[in-house]
Amino acid sequence: MTINTVINAAGRSVPLEINGQPVIPYKGVGQHRPTGRKYSPPVPTCSDYPDDGNKVVGSLEEALRKCGLIDGMTISTHHHLRDGDLVSNKVFDLASSIGVKDLVWFPSASFPCNDPLIKYLDDRTINRIEGSMNGLLGQYVSEGRMKGTAVLRSHGGRVQAIQDGEVKIDIAVMAAPTADAFGNARGTGGSSACGVLGYAKADYMYAEKVIVVTDNLIDFPCFPMEIEGNYVDYVVVVDKIGIPEKIMSGTTQVTKSPDRLLIAELTASFLEKSGILKDGVTIQEGAGGTSLAIAMFVQEILKNKGWKFKFGFGGSTHHMVKMLEEGQMGFILDAQIFDPEAIRSIETNIRHVPYPVFNAYNYHSKGNLNSMMDIMILGATEVDLNFNGNVVTHSDGYLLHGIGGWQNCLHARNVILPLPLFRDRIPVIVDEVTTLCGPGELIDVIVTERGIAINPLRQDLIESVKGSGLPLKTIRELKDEAERICGKPQKPQFEEKIVAAIKWVDGTIIDVVRKLKSQ
Amino acid sequence: MTINTVINAAGRSVPLEINGQPVIPYKGVGQHRPTGRKYSPPVPTCSDYPDDGNKVVGSLEEALRKCGLIDGMTISTHHHLRDGDLVSNKVFDLASSIGVKDLVWFPSASFPCNDPLIKYLDDRTINRIEGSMNGLLGQYVSEGRMKGTAVLRSHGGRVQAIQDGEVKIDIAVMAAPTADAFGNARGTGGSSACGVLGYAKADYMYAEKVIVVTDNLIDFPCFPMEIEGNYVDYVVVVDKIGIPEKIMSGTTQVTKSPDRLLIAELTASFLEKSGILKDGVTIQEGAGGTSLAIAMFVQEILKNKGWKFKFGFGGSTHHMVKMLEEGQMGFILDAQIFDPEAIRSIETNIRHVPYPVFNAYNYHSKGNLNSMMDIMILGATEVDLNFNGNVVTHSDGYLLHGIGGWQNCLHARNVILPLPLFRDRIPVIVDEVTTLCGPGELIDVIVTERGIAINPLRQDLIESVKGSGLPLKTIRELKDEAERICGKPQKPQFEEKIVAAIKWVDGTIIDVVRKLKSQ
Repeated sequence: MTINTVINAAGRSVPLEINGQPVIPYKGVGQHRPTGRKYSPPVPTCSDYPDDGNKVVGSLEEALRKCGLIDGMTISTHHHLRDGDLVSNKVFDLASSIGVKDLVWFPSASFPCNDPLIKYLDDRTINRIEGSMNGLLGQYVSEGRMKGTAVLRSHGGRVQAIQDGEVKIDIAVMAAPTADAFGNARGTGGSSACGVLGYAKADYMYAEKVIVVTDNLIDFPCFPMEIEGNYVDYVVVVDKIGIPEKIMSGTTQVTKSPDRLLIAELTASFLEKSGILKDGVTIQEGAGGTSLAIAMFVQEILKNKGWKFKFGFGGSTHHMVKMLEEGQMGFILDAQIFDPEAIRSIETNIRHVPYPVFNAYNYHSKGNLNSMMDIMILGATEVDLNFNGNVVTHSDGYLLHGIGGWQNCLHARNVILPLPLFRDRIPVIVDEVTTLCGPGELIDVIVTERGIAINPLRQDLIESVKGSGLPLKTIRELKDEAERICGKPQKPQFEEKIVAAIKWVDGTIIDVVRKLKSQ
Repeated sequence: MTINTVINAAGRSVPLEINGQPVIPYKGVGQHRPTGRKYSPPVPTCSDYPDDGNKVVGSLEEALRKCGLIDGMTISTHHHLRDGDLVSNKVFDLASSIGVKDLVWFPSASFPCNDPLIKYLDDRTINRIEGSMNGLLGQYVSEGRMKGTAVLRSHGGRVQAIQDGEVKIDIAVMAAPTADAFGNARGTGGSSACGVLGYAKADYMYAEKVIVVTDNLIDFPCFPMEIEGNYVDYVVVVDKIGIPEKIMSGTTQVTKSPDRLLIAELTASFLEKSGILKDGVTIQEGAGGTSLAIAMFVQEILKNKGWKFKFGFGGSTHHMVKMLEEGQMGFILDAQIFDPEAIRSIETNIRHVPYPVFNAYNYHSKGNLNSMMDIMILGATEVDLNFNGNVVTHSDGYLLHGIGGWQNCLHARNVILPLPLFRDRIPVIVDEVTTLCGPGELIDVIVTERGIAINPLRQDLIESVKGSGLPLKTIRELKDEAERICGKPQKPQFEEKIVAAIKWVDGTIIDVVRKLKSQ
């Protein structure tokens, strides 16, 4: 089969059709204007639902059958239970035993715990995954073994796709740490608490059918109702929706690596000396070890100056909570929670507030939180000489990560990528990124242990740190330095076959991932 | 012009078309099955909104112009500022000075403060009002002077109409006691606090354009965001959105009338003796003097027995707050707030929770709060021998009230109407209601100062109070007794012309109001 491809505005060759549906090539930042109307699910009626509000059914299988599960349906799940999720796989175990085929799994992210789904990709219970592919699942896709084409979207792009009807969810299966029989649900409480359910909103609002699965059924009313019961069809009570120690991320420890600590210190120093860091600005940063170290250094600066962040946007960690409680952060707005300290905080502190990605990240809404953020700390697997970024493939060409909120966060005022100059002796700065996930015009600063490169588009930033003593370099200098140490890495070899499409925040196709050449 | 009418399932003659749009005659409780999809507004894009999230424009006029205000548009407002609302009239003052004609005003309720809009009905700035008509506005409609036909909906029916696309809101103008520049807004804070914004949700979600008008602009983030900023187009800051002493209802005083107190005592006694009142049940009642008296008597019973309501649904009053704080109520779920004590409560008590009518009352959703309520205390202007109820017209035929949540609340398990046997020597129980707002099959008990009538459909209730010593009568006995005292009132005389349509909760037409014959 020949695939019609075109060169998009980023110079990448992309198809005009994916999984039998027409798609739009990327046109540039802010260039694509949507023309349609939001997706609209069918109008339900209360006469189909129990007067007493009790929607509990006997099992997940019963709920799936009542939802009319058939071949080809799209099933969505959220990833708040992370690597401790016991619900998503169960859905496909049941689908398989029912004998349903060609499903689309549409998770907000996948984790290693989802690797067992490979057997259902093999036997065509699942046609494809539209969502992040990590580890073994990513390898499976990169080897061209998945029947359908993967579609990778940012968290905000996922909301956009649901809202705009690009993805029609037939059944949303929403795991809930606490729920009532009407279907109101929240992320706190019970033995599988994950804190907030910031990724569930678009799913339950737009899906045709919604199943809430909980191991902690409480009396109505369950508050705050992060899932609104009047969108819910069925409630299923199970023994256990998750494995607590795997729900909480293992990544929320400050790095101990001297190189990473140096990067963190340089980043904090850059923020201070450039004047980006000042009283009343806003910040978002990841939960990785380097990010936490940056936050630690930054907090010290704030303390010394008597400054305070207006707010921070989560995923929240114990470190953000520390800033909130010690007075260096006004509010935490939060779409996901990474550790138990942050759960305690959101349960007790009125300045720690759930803020769904639906409200924060969807580019097809009337404004976003992203573009209001002053300081954005992000990662990348590769950055190229034009500051373009890659977060989904490694330099070896394997699809090994999802996009997460990364593309959305690029819309912040100052996007800073603290990165090691190389990982396992593979340089991170390359001539051209293997997979383009974010255009270089949105990436402002690269901070490495051997120097800081500022995007030439940001002359204001370059001016701001002149004479500051910071180790400023061009991105080419950084690349050359890495290559002097590691040598120039071999580029991965690909076949023609497209195994995954990378969407931009507006639903257009910014790049694709192709099948790795068999060795 | 001849109007095609049919006899609907309630035996009422209703048209097949209203304001040029086809409508569906009432088919019976739970009999109408919607077949369409929810309404979908256009997909917006962040590229049209300021990156810094600041949507403040210079004036309401500027905002209306930016929204593209033109002839024939539908403008929605909410009624949380009640008789102290300074925003709704202003919209039409501006529309008039701009020279726009034939607008539809779609408020969640109107108040006497809106009487000045009559001049805009006269000069055709406004074609019609779709919403409650009280006092002078109602009289205006009843006299056949409004160009278009009024459409009256319950609070839940209003949500249904918006969601289902029966009413397409061009511009929602949402007054907000507190808001940030992004458009997040809430009902507390500032000098015009109204407590919650439980009637705004469908409007801002489905309107093409949304304007938030506030007199208390605060720094982002405004929480809780009862209006979500990412649905908002413009924010307008004005000196004053409301007159505080008129925002708070004047009705939240316990009745001092001996007759009304007797009705209240009989109602409480009925609830106790029938066994409806017990530990853990749920209650909703109005904010009128009789309702408050009932609540007082009921609280005494609860205290003596050591019982507690699981929750109560507001509009909340100081009396509900008293029950919450003294331990006779587990939660208050709240869509509107009637007095300052209740505002204090929702600001400080985590068991007092906003619960929009969007979630509580919409019959076209996946279940409702209404049908989960055990005890529902409601009023009526008339009840007939078949227990049918009227809440919009008086016995003189004038349209003088809105439906409020009344039709929605009829879906509760036990619907009890405490009513005086006559008002101003006009009997309340009649042969046939002037206007049918709710079918008798949903109305269970009428409590008057001269006896209690139980709907024969509720044999269980009749059994439950046998031998209780309560003054049980048939509804005919009550009617006869009233007529012995007051005489049989003259029926109002109507012309053919339909001046208002009364919708049932599912969007069908249950009855109409016709023009009063000129005298």
